[in-house]
Amino acid sequence: MRVYLAGPDVFLPDPAARAASLKAICAQHGLVGVWPIDSLPDEPPAWRQLGEARRIALCNEAHIRGCDALIANLTPFRGPSADAGTVFELGFMRALGRPVFAWSNTALPFTARTLAFLGRAARADGAAWRDGEGLQVEDFGGADNLMLDGAITASGGVLVCQNVPEAARWSDLSAFARCVAAAARSA
Amino acid sequence: MRVYLAGPDVFLPDPAARAASLKAICAQHGLVGVWPIDSLPDEPPAWRQLGEARRIALCNEAHIRGCDALIANLTPFRGPSADAGTVFELGFMRALGRPVFAWSNTALPFTARTLAFLGRAARADGAAWRDGEGLQVEDFGGADNLMLDGAITASGGVLVCQNVPEAARWSDLSAFARCVAAAARSA
Repeated sequence: MRVYLAGPDVFLPDPAARAASLKAICAQHGLVGVWPIDSLPDEPPAWRQLGEARRIALCNEAHIRGCDALIANLTPFRGPSADAGTVFELGFMRALGRPVFAWSNTALPFTARTLAFLGRAARADGAAWRDGEGLQVEDFGGADNLMLDGAITASGGVLVCQNVPEAARWSDLSAFARCVAAAARSA
Repeated sequence: MRVYLAGPDVFLPDPAARAASLKAICAQHGLVGVWPIDSLPDEPPAWRQLGEARRIALCNEAHIRGCDALIANLTPFRGPSADAGTVFELGFMRALGRPVFAWSNTALPFTARTLAFLGRAARADGAAWRDGEGLQVEDFGGADNLMLDGAITASGGVLVCQNVPEAARWSDLSAFARCVAAAARSA
């Protein structure tokens, strides 16, 4: 089973080392991990004429189409939610009807993270919370926006969230390993 | 043409009024706007037994599948990127191969927004910027993560970004109207 490794991990200081770590864990469970910036064997030559960002986007989409499942790193990224590129890819794979798995290095629910992010700007409105601009804070007890949690559950995937020390947010791979094990069992 | 109206607009204080405003602009251009929480005529009875969040997620996915195009409100939401649910839905529709359009009430590029969000935590690393945890800041001149910009372009959609006064971030619909006009012309 080929699994697409979605996540902001590509932005880490040593992305090649990270790719090797993630792929090694996949291999231990009999899965083939596909890293977003792996070369695409059948890349259409025309894509090389595009700007780098457009080319990467098309190659990532092609990699996702070529995988049987997706595992997303939903550790909160510069705000209460996961990285936007990762979330896009989760939605993309969900629409293809294949299983989507996810992991996060925090177990703090989305609502609590959002309220912590808003700080004093959050205000109570009856039973609901709103931000400083009046927009409601989602409060369903999920790990992130309900589209993400809902997609993982409906697709037959698994969401593994666990707390790690703050300094290990981008290095601890134990939740990832549990996620890979769950994906392998489901194959 | 039926267009799915993705955005954090559902969190506004008066979502029904917002839905009416967006649908009216669509109608002026001959399009039918589909609001995420419109009732789903053919909703499977079993979904009513699910928790509310799971049910909404499945209904939204069904609404997207029933539309010919998607228009996303990518105005930055509690961080440098767009709302996670909106981004998920953009990726979902992109995977279906249908055109995705987007609008934002800021014209400030993603990199500049991210650096403003990071503030003093941002640090230069050669030609690149990194956040306080060492993760690189994407710097391709786009409006958001490259998967979003790339999908809009590749799908034949249009991205309309314009600055509005801070107080009008969630009320100004002129960028949305331009986006709807572009979608109507492409139909």
